[in-house]
Amino acid sequence: MDVGIGIVGYGLMGRAHAYGYRVAPTVRELPVTPRLRVISGRDAAGVEAAAGRYSVEGWTTDWREVVARDDVDIVDVCTPPGTHAEIVEAAAAAGKAVLSEKPLAADYASARRAADAARAAKVANAIGFNYRRLPAIALLRQLVHEGAVGDVLLWRGSWLSDEFLDPDIAFDWRFERRMGASTFADLGAHLVDLALWTVGDVEEVAAQSETFTRERSGRAVDVDEASSALVAFAGGARGTLEVARVCARRPCDFVVEVNGTRGTVRFDYARLNELWLGDTADDGRFYGLRRIRAEHPSHPYAADWWPIGQGVGYGVSFVNQAAELLSRWPDGGWDPDLDQGARVQAVCEAMERAAAERRWVRVDEVTR
Amino acid sequence: MDVGIGIVGYGLMGRAHAYGYRVAPTVRELPVTPRLRVISGRDAAGVEAAAGRYSVEGWTTDWREVVARDDVDIVDVCTPPGTHAEIVEAAAAAGKAVLSEKPLAADYASARRAADAARAAKVANAIGFNYRRLPAIALLRQLVHEGAVGDVLLWRGSWLSDEFLDPDIAFDWRFERRMGASTFADLGAHLVDLALWTVGDVEEVAAQSETFTRERSGRAVDVDEASSALVAFAGGARGTLEVARVCARRPCDFVVEVNGTRGTVRFDYARLNELWLGDTADDGRFYGLRRIRAEHPSHPYAADWWPIGQGVGYGVSFVNQAAELLSRWPDGGWDPDLDQGARVQAVCEAMERAAAERRWVRVDEVTR
Amino acid sequence: MDVGIGIVGYGLMGRAHAYGYRVAPTVRELPVTPRLRVISGRDAAGVEAAAGRYSVEGWTTDWREVVARDDVDIVDVCTPPGTHAEIVEAAAAAGKAVLSEKPLAADYASARRAADAARAAKVANAIGFNYRRLPAIALLRQLVHEGAVGDVLLWRGSWLSDEFLDPDIAFDWRFERRMGASTFADLGAHLVDLALWTVGDVEEVAAQSETFTRERSGRAVDVDEASSALVAFAGGARGTLEVARVCARRPCDFVVEVNGTRGTVRFDYARLNELWLGDTADDGRFYGLRRIRAEHPSHPYAADWWPIGQGVGYGVSFVNQAAELLSRWPDGGWDPDLDQGARVQAVCEAMERAAAERRWVRVDEVTR
Amino acid sequence: MDVGIGIVGYGLMGRAHAYGYRVAPTVRELPVTPRLRVISGRDAAGVEAAAGRYSVEGWTTDWREVVARDDVDIVDVCTPPGTHAEIVEAAAAAGKAVLSEKPLAADYASARRAADAARAAKVANAIGFNYRRLPAIALLRQLVHEGAVGDVLLWRGSWLSDEFLDPDIAFDWRFERRMGASTFADLGAHLVDLALWTVGDVEEVAAQSETFTRERSGRAVDVDEASSALVAFAGGARGTLEVARVCARRPCDFVVEVNGTRGTVRFDYARLNELWLGDTADDGRFYGLRRIRAEHPSHPYAADWWPIGQGVGYGVSFVNQAAELLSRWPDGGWDPDLDQGARVQAVCEAMERAAAERRWVRVDEVTR
Repeated sequence: MDVGIGIVGYGLMGRAHAYGYRVAPTVRELPVTPRLRVISGRDAAGVEAAAGRYSVEGWTTDWREVVARDDVDIVDVCTPPGTHAEIVEAAAAAGKAVLSEKPLAADYASARRAADAARAAKVANAIGFNYRRLPAIALLRQLVHEGAVGDVLLWRGSWLSDEFLDPDIAFDWRFERRMGASTFADLGAHLVDLALWTVGDVEEVAAQSETFTRERSGRAVDVDEASSALVAFAGGARGTLEVARVCARRPCDFVVEVNGTRGTVRFDYARLNELWLGDTADDGRFYGLRRIRAEHPSHPYAADWWPIGQGVGYGVSFVNQAAELLSRWPDGGWDPDLDQGARVQAVCEAMERAAAERRWVRVDEVTR
Repeated sequence: MDVGIGIVGYGLMGRAHAYGYRVAPTVRELPVTPRLRVISGRDAAGVEAAAGRYSVEGWTTDWREVVARDDVDIVDVCTPPGTHAEIVEAAAAAGKAVLSEKPLAADYASARRAADAARAAKVANAIGFNYRRLPAIALLRQLVHEGAVGDVLLWRGSWLSDEFLDPDIAFDWRFERRMGASTFADLGAHLVDLALWTVGDVEEVAAQSETFTRERSGRAVDVDEASSALVAFAGGARGTLEVARVCARRPCDFVVEVNGTRGTVRFDYARLNELWLGDTADDGRFYGLRRIRAEHPSHPYAADWWPIGQGVGYGVSFVNQAAELLSRWPDGGWDPDLDQGARVQAVCEAMERAAAERRWVRVDEVTR
Repeated sequence: MDVGIGIVGYGLMGRAHAYGYRVAPTVRELPVTPRLRVISGRDAAGVEAAAGRYSVEGWTTDWREVVARDDVDIVDVCTPPGTHAEIVEAAAAAGKAVLSEKPLAADYASARRAADAARAAKVANAIGFNYRRLPAIALLRQLVHEGAVGDVLLWRGSWLSDEFLDPDIAFDWRFERRMGASTFADLGAHLVDLALWTVGDVEEVAAQSETFTRERSGRAVDVDEASSALVAFAGGARGTLEVARVCARRPCDFVVEVNGTRGTVRFDYARLNELWLGDTADDGRFYGLRRIRAEHPSHPYAADWWPIGQGVGYGVSFVNQAAELLSRWPDGGWDPDLDQGARVQAVCEAMERAAAERRWVRVDEVTR
Repeated sequence: MDVGIGIVGYGLMGRAHAYGYRVAPTVRELPVTPRLRVISGRDAAGVEAAAGRYSVEGWTTDWREVVARDDVDIVDVCTPPGTHAEIVEAAAAAGKAVLSEKPLAADYASARRAADAARAAKVANAIGFNYRRLPAIALLRQLVHEGAVGDVLLWRGSWLSDEFLDPDIAFDWRFERRMGASTFADLGAHLVDLALWTVGDVEEVAAQSETFTRERSGRAVDVDEASSALVAFAGGARGTLEVARVCARRPCDFVVEVNGTRGTVRFDYARLNELWLGDTADDGRFYGLRRIRAEHPSHPYAADWWPIGQGVGYGVSFVNQAAELLSRWPDGGWDPDLDQGARVQAVCEAMERAAAERRWVRVDEVTR
């Protein structure tokens, strides 16, 4: 059976998602065949070239056409964050399944509406937290849920990049709060998703934010460049989060660590085929962390790929994501869904508010 | 324009090559469109399933059919080493372009014949030294050739795996010398290729080999499990090489290092998105090696892939290889070609002979 | 000339300080000869054994005797934090030079009094921020001050240990707030000192704290086990700090990183002979961080030690500290002095207050 | 009881040994007190300064005086390798215990004579393989001997430094074969000692050597700068060894790895407080190597030092060595003794001969 895919947006995420659908059938036996029907974007020349490059059958400059097409079953939303919600709502209204890139929206209210729309329409829906699909990260969560680290006491996540460091980078939508979302939401959404998925609900946060380059191309920048937060989980664990785009020679270094009553587990994206695990049940002579090569056939997703030691990369997260969604077509039950996208957004927004108002903010102040 | 591909062999390499052709058009603009016409294998059920899984149009149990088909332009040889030469010769005779997996053959004489056949037939031809296609390794060679390390003094390469460690692994073709080739050739070919490509010709070698498990499933094993060699390059540099398949918890850890009059460069496959560089021209205060994130747009192949810091994996080497070959179609001029495959084979065979005869062996004893 | 040393406290710090004085003369030419005159402790058998073990001439169970002795020139305070201030004040009153272990006190008011007492008495005085004496950390600060990273934007420091993880560890003074100080102060003081030294004054903080094991040996624990803070520097930089003693299989892993407009510098104590530096002025082809081997003769303290690559350890920080103090005897002008100890204490106390009161706290709320 | 030490040679090794004796009593309870009585060297001003710096009571320009002194119990030989044997023989003849730096001599015959002289004189005797005294290396050997890696199959050792890279370094004794010994012996002796200690006897070797800078200060250099060897152990294991002094920005990077039927253990001196261990008995989900923090109180020597995670350095190897020797005074039974020095020398000489004669050389060709 063919499943028609329509991609809205042809930038990096559009490319990565197209890559995912194209490669997925070569690594896993799927019940359906994905067909890349159409891709949209506002620039005709750009989107036409992208359609050719990404092996998509057609293209359009109007995203509403993507949503309207009969041969499109899944609308895949890869536009800037500030536009996600409207497209998701339209797709749901048209009865289409929908996958939205993260963050689900530029604000919680929009995220909530988008998730509610999908639920009301009873369409399959998913949010693009692709890093969950890496073997090492999926293994981290599996180990924590199995009790390998005991009860979680501490969680920490950080994401250091240099993408905004140069003050001469021209203004674009990423620097516009209502379109690009906050850095808390844009980078932080991945970290917060992993925190909720691994540890559980966040109850309360304190935070700070800074924008060092406040004007670009003559326009005011209203997006935070470097932000950090203190996190109190509902279950009693504590956490810290840092997202920063002004860290020289740090391209995209995200690290997540969990410390529990029994052990420690740590993931460093710069070495994405590894997971580090320490277990107090091991003899003291072996004190330290193990460097697990997270490519063993027993590890999540790993058996679909290469022999252990060969390594996978970023692209694999999108291939695995596509394979997961397609393998459950048309039943849905996709996970993580847009609701998770909204839950994550609430935490990010609480952080943003905490930074702005210089006080601890409960997540339910945002959601209620 | 379409280019028809016929793949001989549907094991891991058949899968990896099919993956390469399928993904290549999504990462680079190519002058031609690869069509996976047919794949062959001796087991009908197995090859049929593989054809479906790898998105190949047809399948056959007779490799000669692959060679004979009019719609096949490139014969891609992914069978055990001992069968490569015959298939290459048949493909060349049929006027097909040919890509052979490494090692080119199980012995130098066969490798030589295969390379000569391709040259005589004037068909485009290539050998599958896929690791050259990783950004970090291509950058290593670029830096050495630009003089970043000065004149090369020392080269070292090692490949540690555990694939033969368990004595209970049943006998298969990998344990049969005439079919699976020596470990010098099977693992070592990659290292020797990199040595020749980076440093230059090898003149003479000494070596040792050991097989710790000499019988499997009641059959004698005549393939070396752990081998090492001393290397004298024609240009005066010295080298060491080690290939071993009995290293517990070492999945596929290959490391290459070059020391020159000016600097050092080092690659460790376990962290394949990194390259380490030391330069004596740098101030002593900065003494040490740099960890270059080998994903910068200025690095070979990197601009085709993801933003810096996201990482690529093993699969990318096959995609880049396919893209390189297709981008030069039909002119050919492929590099590395089968002749390089034969040159590498000569060095591997010299090592094997040196180990067997317990003496230094000149490479030209093999080739003359 | 001999300089008489009297050490108050014979635990780990007493041992480390004794080690420092004993070894210092063998690594650096000093204008004076340290004499370990006396060591004190409340347990006679324990302190007697320690005197023998640490090669100290005499011992006493009364620290006031140490302060009173004519042949003691420097009183070295190695007792629990809650007792430092009283001993420092007594030593200053007796006209002795004084070195206090960190944190200077268990609260800011006591720290302030101790520092003021030393200043009023015009005695040479120092605080034991020994990690400043490691080549890599001293180099980090030197590079930042020279502008190698440009203007500082972000600072982060974390200290992960497992020393309080086991709930069965019996109650001792470390778990008693007024004696062992807060974890913010006990571990954090090192990090805060490095922040102030490298970046500059801290203006304001938010924080959180948790104690997971609230009772030990039937006694209430009132010391935080895991704490974190957000930091706003007076100069506009932002920072994060985390100190935690419940991180399984993390023995004493402290990391400091600075990101500036030009570069990044990072230190990881688990590899204490290395410093990582990234510079945006380097060509993009070299993108990444350098691993500087922080043992080059041009590096601080390094020329006193071993050839590059051999490595130093923890003990060296105490030897270098002793050598620095002795090399300035009797002129003093020691750095860092007790005033720096008090400044650090103010920041730690602001963090503690911020955690308790769940609000941003200005450091000058503590100091004024 | 006092034990008088006389040190012959005041260079780096003289300094390191003096450091060892001085610090040893502060870390371990010893049955005797070492007294640094005298140090010798040919340059009066140099040795006088050294005596002051290293806290040695007296000095002389005539090493025979050291040997002759009544108050010297242990003669500690820290001169260039080519002079060791004569001094050892004189010391033994004078009934002194003797510790010789490695390599024991510049050739096997001299090494043999020195070891025989000590044995004949029945004096306590030791060879300075100080790296055995590092916790991580001692732990490596302990684990191998306990069977943690099973039967040893492969051993590899390499030592990469840059000390001879610069062709402008002036001629000194290190470049003179009969005085400085071969690089096989000077650097390789440590590696060979570890191989014999961990794996067992070496039976046969092949090797190569190169000297890239053949003249310095107008004098011919007859010492190898970069050498490598293939090793066949008597027990059936195989090995490789590389020693090189022309590796840019590699200060002193030595690595040892053992692969056995059950596991792998690896030590990298650049991270000397760590040991890496892989065990096939662990579940496949934990595939990889553990990074053991080799400072746990259960590890050799570790309890004498600092809390886990703090780290030790090079100096500690000499302190532990001194502590070991002194703790067995006057009974002796020192290990490793000069006989081990001679055994190691035989292997190094076999390698040197194998390189010169371009053939496999049995170690018993050297020793018989």
